[in-house]
Amino acid sequence: MTTTDAPASTSTTRPASLAADDVRRIVHPYTPTESRERFIIESGSGCRVRDVDGREYLDGIGGLGLSQIGHGRTEIAEAAAAQMKRLEFFHSRWNFSNDRAIELASRLGEIAPEGLDHVYFTSGGAEGNDIALRMARYFHYRNGEPERTWFLARNMAYHGITYGSGSVTGSAEYHEGFGPMLPNVKFLTAPYPYKRHFFHGEDPTEFCLRELRETIEEIGPEHIAAMIGEPIMGPGGVLIPPPDYWPRVAEVLRSYGILLISDEIVTGYGRLGRWFGAEHVGVTPDILVTAKGLTSGYVPHGAVLLNSRVAEAIGRDSGFPIGYTYNGHPTACAVALANLDIIEREGLVRNAEVVGNYLGDQLRALLDLPAVGEVRQLGLMMAVELVSDKETREPLPQGTSPVADRIREESGVLVRGNPNSFVLTPPLVLTEAEADEAAEGVRSVLRRLRPDGTIE
Amino acid sequence: MTTTDAPASTSTTRPASLAADDVRRIVHPYTPTESRERFIIESGSGCRVRDVDGREYLDGIGGLGLSQIGHGRTEIAEAAAAQMKRLEFFHSRWNFSNDRAIELASRLGEIAPEGLDHVYFTSGGAEGNDIALRMARYFHYRNGEPERTWFLARNMAYHGITYGSGSVTGSAEYHEGFGPMLPNVKFLTAPYPYKRHFFHGEDPTEFCLRELRETIEEIGPEHIAAMIGEPIMGPGGVLIPPPDYWPRVAEVLRSYGILLISDEIVTGYGRLGRWFGAEHVGVTPDILVTAKGLTSGYVPHGAVLLNSRVAEAIGRDSGFPIGYTYNGHPTACAVALANLDIIEREGLVRNAEVVGNYLGDQLRALLDLPAVGEVRQLGLMMAVELVSDKETREPLPQGTSPVADRIREESGVLVRGNPNSFVLTPPLVLTEAEADEAAEGVRSVLRRLRPDGTIE
Repeated sequence: MTTTDAPASTSTTRPASLAADDVRRIVHPYTPTESRERFIIESGSGCRVRDVDGREYLDGIGGLGLSQIGHGRTEIAEAAAAQMKRLEFFHSRWNFSNDRAIELASRLGEIAPEGLDHVYFTSGGAEGNDIALRMARYFHYRNGEPERTWFLARNMAYHGITYGSGSVTGSAEYHEGFGPMLPNVKFLTAPYPYKRHFFHGEDPTEFCLRELRETIEEIGPEHIAAMIGEPIMGPGGVLIPPPDYWPRVAEVLRSYGILLISDEIVTGYGRLGRWFGAEHVGVTPDILVTAKGLTSGYVPHGAVLLNSRVAEAIGRDSGFPIGYTYNGHPTACAVALANLDIIEREGLVRNAEVVGNYLGDQLRALLDLPAVGEVRQLGLMMAVELVSDKETREPLPQGTSPVADRIREESGVLVRGNPNSFVLTPPLVLTEAEADEAAEGVRSVLRRLRPDGTIE
Repeated sequence: MTTTDAPASTSTTRPASLAADDVRRIVHPYTPTESRERFIIESGSGCRVRDVDGREYLDGIGGLGLSQIGHGRTEIAEAAAAQMKRLEFFHSRWNFSNDRAIELASRLGEIAPEGLDHVYFTSGGAEGNDIALRMARYFHYRNGEPERTWFLARNMAYHGITYGSGSVTGSAEYHEGFGPMLPNVKFLTAPYPYKRHFFHGEDPTEFCLRELRETIEEIGPEHIAAMIGEPIMGPGGVLIPPPDYWPRVAEVLRSYGILLISDEIVTGYGRLGRWFGAEHVGVTPDILVTAKGLTSGYVPHGAVLLNSRVAEAIGRDSGFPIGYTYNGHPTACAVALANLDIIEREGLVRNAEVVGNYLGDQLRALLDLPAVGEVRQLGLMMAVELVSDKETREPLPQGTSPVADRIREESGVLVRGNPNSFVLTPPLVLTEAEADEAAEGVRSVLRRLRPDGTIE
């Protein structure tokens, strides 16, 4: 029995039966056991997805912040099938490699920020951050500084859920009930200027830099391996730091011999209107972690980019001693190559900037509404911060998820609810007409949103 | 530019240029920076793979212990392409799901050991073990026992390289230079009867059980979340425990309220001549981690199977609060369904048993050779332990990698070298003729292997 080419459902029996099976069998993240409602997505094209009940949605979250080229692209399907027929997979350990991985490595060398000329392949973002942390400690170990084991991270950062990546994720809910987490992690204040109280009246960059230097002195620079951070904090709510934040942080780290790991899992591959966020913030890290947009999610895949100083240190003697099964997966690499082809050919990096600004302008026009506190946008990554009081900047008591749900229900536009803000990361193929539709879906609900969080 | 359908190389320029690019760009696991030799695999069919220099290999390691259905299967390529055109990916968080994930969950419910009726999808084995550890702690946290945070693991176990899975991996080389690892992990002796000195003259099971009980009492059962173990330790060297080991371990754990996590990343999906290793060892764990053979590696994917007691506890209130981007990846699930179809239709579970025993018999016939200490085989997973002295059972001074290299060079048969033994995990489609070829490749070298590790 092959089940892969079954026709789309036409009756109501199948949706109900699928939902019942889902409830009976699958553990979803963030889904209470008692919950019975399901949105079972079964097809997608471009920026649209459709569920088994026949409802269509405008995918404002881009799969999950990764669908650069949009859904259901035939060219990718054909590239994947061709590679699977030729060589679906062989391992990349010891002296084994494959032509697709090498071609992708060369291609990444062309688009990566200057100096990041080595790559270690993974199957996703959490794996990437996890191994980046390991690489940072191993770099110092190999260089005769085995005491450099501490990591600096930031509150509100999201780096994934493996024990390594989760240990540097700066929100209590990812730790509570799971600890003890990895030792030797210190969290710093997020550069989130809208939250004035974080900085006690001080300039946000000055505050963060002083805190950084004090923390380094407190732990001792000779004990610190690396700082990890997203150039723009994504799931935390598209937190865009002041322009001088990253250059000054990088300078401090460099002066203490501390490596910089940049998590560009969301911001990489055109999301911000540049190939990488590093170009926006003007800082090139030692290790740059990517995933998501590398394949637009068609196959799980990731690439950790390294400068030669790190690559050479960790590869000394008998080589970097740990590997994932799927390092350099041939099919994933073939899909990534075809995906980068589309991003280039269709000018999607530029489209992210143009349509991103176009949609951002429409959202910024909502700043006069009583519950809209701030709009943060860079390329096709944006957040609308909702507040119950524009003076105190207090978040809505219920968070923004009920607003996100209402937008979905009324307009079919999908956005991602967070405690302070809801986030849009649509495919980079978004058109201005689709941006209008997304803006109208958001506007229609926000116009009726009261500062107590209720909707008229 | 689409690079996916380039013809196989015919000149020598391309291989040299690919190798140079590889050396310049890619960080491989276990590959020293100075190493220049590369085996660049570019095509595969069934149990054969071929490199860009035109050399053909018999894939005795099955990709990396995962290629149940063999390489280059058209049916999988078509299933993947069909799903990508329809819906390549959408996330599975909150109340979102997709039809392929639900169908795969139901299918897994049919083949999984009784009682493991829930599933949490991942993209691979390390992610699976990492989250299984988190689930075990969270289970106790939700049940009002937040002090149960310790893990019991075993020396020589391999569970992956994320910080969680790597922290329970029982070999120093996965920790050295990467620590401090996750706290609260205690390692027990591997059930490796051939290593008599591990047990100081005692019966291996009695020794391991006494050590287990003493360790539990020492840490305090009220502090222990789970024990993690492979039913048959794979990368450690196909360590088959005595038949009473797992039933008695499971009984002790149950009596103390400690969960059992079984890592079946290698042993699942027919490898041992049964669907799961649990059937061999006669023990059903609380959490069973799978990956690899689930898709035969065509797309990275994994499934963590849970009993309802665990699933219900971790999903209470607002639900299990952590998720991977690719949970329930539609294309990966479609590929898994098509892969399970092939395993069933072609009777590969049974073939693993029959051809595994056939190949195992040929390897056991080598036990008279001076350096062959033990042959361990179950289904199509087997190891040949090499020794410099059959009395003391001392390993070869160089380990077995030089022997594995020589087998590859002389016969084109790929086996995996380890310190004590070399391991074979060929595709489950292996024929008797291919088994003969693998056996001859091994036999030819072992006949000339001297106990000092040199080869005539």
